Amino acid sequence: MEPAEIKSEKKKVVAVVGGGLVGALNACFFAKRGFDVQVYESREDIRTAKVVKGRSINLALSHRGRSALKHVGLEEKIVSQGIPMHARMIHSLNGKQSPIPYGKKGQFILSVDRANLNKQLLTEAETYPNTKLNFDHKLQDWNAETGAMTFVRADGTKQQILADLIVGCDGAFSSIRKQFLRRSRFNYSQTYIPHGYMELTMPPRDGDFAMKPNYLHIWPRNTFMMIALPNLDKTFTCTLFMPFENFEEITTGDEVLEFFQKYFPDAIPLIGVEALKCDYFRLPAQAMVSVKCSPYHIADKCVLMGDAAHAVVPFYGQGMNAGFEDCIVFDEIMDQFNDDLSEVLPEYTRVRVPDDHAIADLAMYNYIEMRAHVNSKWFLFRKYVDNFLHFLMPRTIVPLYTMVTFTRTRYHQAVERWQWQNKVINRGLFFCGTGAVLGGSYLLFKNPPNVDKIHIDVEKMWNRLLSTGTS
Amino acid sequence: MEPAEIKSEKKKVVAVVGGGLVGALNACFFAKRGFDVQVYESREDIRTAKVVKGRSINLALSHRGRSALKHVGLEEKIVSQGIPMHARMIHSLNGKQSPIPYGKKGQFILSVDRANLNKQLLTEAETYPNTKLNFDHKLQDWNAETGAMTFVRADGTKQQILADLIVGCDGAFSSIRKQFLRRSRFNYSQTYIPHGYMELTMPPRDGDFAMKPNYLHIWPRNTFMMIALPNLDKTFTCTLFMPFENFEEITTGDEVLEFFQKYFPDAIPLIGVEALKCDYFRLPAQAMVSVKCSPYHIADKCVLMGDAAHAVVPFYGQGMNAGFEDCIVFDEIMDQFNDDLSEVLPEYTRVRVPDDHAIADLAMYNYIEMRAHVNSKWFLFRKYVDNFLHFLMPRTIVPLYTMVTFTRTRYHQAVERWQWQNKVINRGLFFCGTGAVLGGSYLLFKNPPNVDKIHIDVEKMWNRLLSTGTS
Repeated sequence: MEPAEIKSEKKKVVAVVGGGLVGALNACFFAKRGFDVQVYESREDIRTAKVVKGRSINLALSHRGRSALKHVGLEEKIVSQGIPMHARMIHSLNGKQSPIPYGKKGQFILSVDRANLNKQLLTEAETYPNTKLNFDHKLQDWNAETGAMTFVRADGTKQQILADLIVGCDGAFSSIRKQFLRRSRFNYSQTYIPHGYMELTMPPRDGDFAMKPNYLHIWPRNTFMMIALPNLDKTFTCTLFMPFENFEEITTGDEVLEFFQKYFPDAIPLIGVEALKCDYFRLPAQAMVSVKCSPYHIADKCVLMGDAAHAVVPFYGQGMNAGFEDCIVFDEIMDQFNDDLSEVLPEYTRVRVPDDHAIADLAMYNYIEMRAHVNSKWFLFRKYVDNFLHFLMPRTIVPLYTMVTFTRTRYHQAVERWQWQNKVINRGLFFCGTGAVLGGSYLLFKNPPNVDKIHIDVEKMWNRLLSTGTS
Repeated sequence: MEPAEIKSEKKKVVAVVGGGLVGALNACFFAKRGFDVQVYESREDIRTAKVVKGRSINLALSHRGRSALKHVGLEEKIVSQGIPMHARMIHSLNGKQSPIPYGKKGQFILSVDRANLNKQLLTEAETYPNTKLNFDHKLQDWNAETGAMTFVRADGTKQQILADLIVGCDGAFSSIRKQFLRRSRFNYSQTYIPHGYMELTMPPRDGDFAMKPNYLHIWPRNTFMMIALPNLDKTFTCTLFMPFENFEEITTGDEVLEFFQKYFPDAIPLIGVEALKCDYFRLPAQAMVSVKCSPYHIADKCVLMGDAAHAVVPFYGQGMNAGFEDCIVFDEIMDQFNDDLSEVLPEYTRVRVPDDHAIADLAMYNYIEMRAHVNSKWFLFRKYVDNFLHFLMPRTIVPLYTMVTFTRTRYHQAVERWQWQNKVINRGLFFCGTGAVLGGSYLLFKNPPNVDKIHIDVEKMWNRLLSTGTS
């Protein structure tokens, strides 16, 4: 692919710390603006590494992430390598599967491979002549006033540079953020949820996916749940979310089996009895943290983006998407203030903090919704009402999930609008309910009913409600 | 003073990091239990130092703090050196002063001098033969698994020790806590409020206090406020709390004067025009932080107490009291588990976290109440209703401030009970109000009223309500 056109001959040095998803994408954004971009990654190059350690293997890419990829010309390529998921597929205890669509017909999220996406982004960043990737460079020290940075290479030698802008994209446990913590008036919180997660693989069956591939499969079990996302190699990655104490209670292969027989019986033959007994003990359950902070910048020298600024729990599928959107938002503000960092950085904090805090809260909220509410009749009824009203009044009523996943509506505005809609809809349902009871009583009193007819009408209405989601 | 009786011949080493209020008091508690107590303080001995840097000079000592001092035989001495404050004294804009009592007759909080209290606690700790105070010892490194610690002395030499228990009492910016932050599943938040504070001195007038001494004076002005606490030398320490941007708007002596003329006119002659113009610029406004975390311990080796575990904003006067109560709670759990640290530390976290989080939230709540609600008629009415009901039913209805300040009711239980009481009282007021309106309408209809009589009755009732607070 051709490197995009390079603006003017600016020579300011941007040091991007972290060569993960957001760091690599950000390198492309800054390269497009004509900066001298240096990416520093403490680990080796994942494209050549033999063993890649690290996080969950698949991610849900949606509109915000795609918009950012489009900006650097990568959207089509990445989308073509992902697997569309049009709906959640809810697995009941008795094995029944029911889909709940994510949005309207044609709307879907994509299951993408984290490692592959990261590799492509790194390769794309390298196509810019004004970008250099420095692997095996561990940040040792840096100065937020001068921009001086010292890195230690794998062989123990040191490299010193002077950056005009330091961009901390070094993840949930960011080293850059540590220096923010030492400064006064930096607000910070890290909250670990009581649940851990564990990944299990569901192999292909007769050369094909063991379950329907175009769904995000969910086994909601109130205090815990399992989900499964499809991979290109026709496997599914199953992720079990459960309180740590429950993980710790299971200590033998037979107990794993007993647990799955009780809660996920339909998954046992698909994962395989022996694999299940063994994989469960391969790695301990991993912790999940939600990080919020403010401000995101120090003077005109340093800014935090991606998980370094706002790690979220994974239950809204927005972690990567929010991080990618950070890059667009920063880029838009750079346009607005003509690359004047002393204006851009405070504005970025002002604009982005409320949105990141909103998505962090939403993800925490969905942490309960996904494993518990999804089972409730009222929740399903409200989902259908929301979708139906969205179908009738597409501009007035937009389901929260749609705003978050399929638009770039600012996260905090999506939440505000959702609260407003909820008030209106609940009030509407209340009045409809009251009206129906009063009207029904009146009609019953006036004309003895034809019960069969009423029954059929209600069913037809209900089916129409259902179909607004799927078709 | 005689060192208290020493229990048995345990030789376990307790390293108390921090020789501030909670560290020094804790040293006494551990010494009483027979441990080999080593206190490490990074600064020099404040009892011999020429210049003492640091925090606000006065504090409000109340029941929880006094209980802890009593435990080490210091209550009477410290109380005799404090100045009782029986009520808040609200200063209106027009100079009118109105008292709002803190509790029942005879209940008061004490204005105490921070430096003096700290000195007395250090001297008390030194009376125990099994306690050593190490000043000018800065913590360089420590190991939460082994208890190995390295300190650097003022002359650059190092001291290494092996502690059985490390007690982090090193304040809101605790170094010990930094290592907790590096561990997984440690929940942490630090929140700076938008307000800063600045201290100004009100000198004595004709050799006596310039205002009534047995009050905590408050000038509530909605978005900001000033308070004043009496000192033994007949001065008052005035503390101005205001958003940082308002502090920054004032840049000249004349602007200070203008600001005070607008909002605190009665304080100008008492502080003095020249002093005011000058003192305002002596130090910049200081930040205030609220810190919450959990757990408080690592294995059986390390525990956080006082501000290191729960820095609170100063608006409930409970920071020191909560820290002192930490020492009693820990001591009680040590009794319960026979000094078995592997049991004591997790239990301390389990018991104390909800209480410390509750007082942190209450202090944040009072941050609004003190500067804003205190001006509202409804707030004053509810205070009197609460006090009146407490007078009628002393066991059923206890005002929140009373539970927090004059009892050792666990903070989180005080909050729960307060919420319950509020529900009951508001419901009661609603029914009384409805009843009164209905009853009144009926009576008015039946008998035309003698307006004078009604007026007198209401006033008498109101006065009785008022007096339940003050007498």
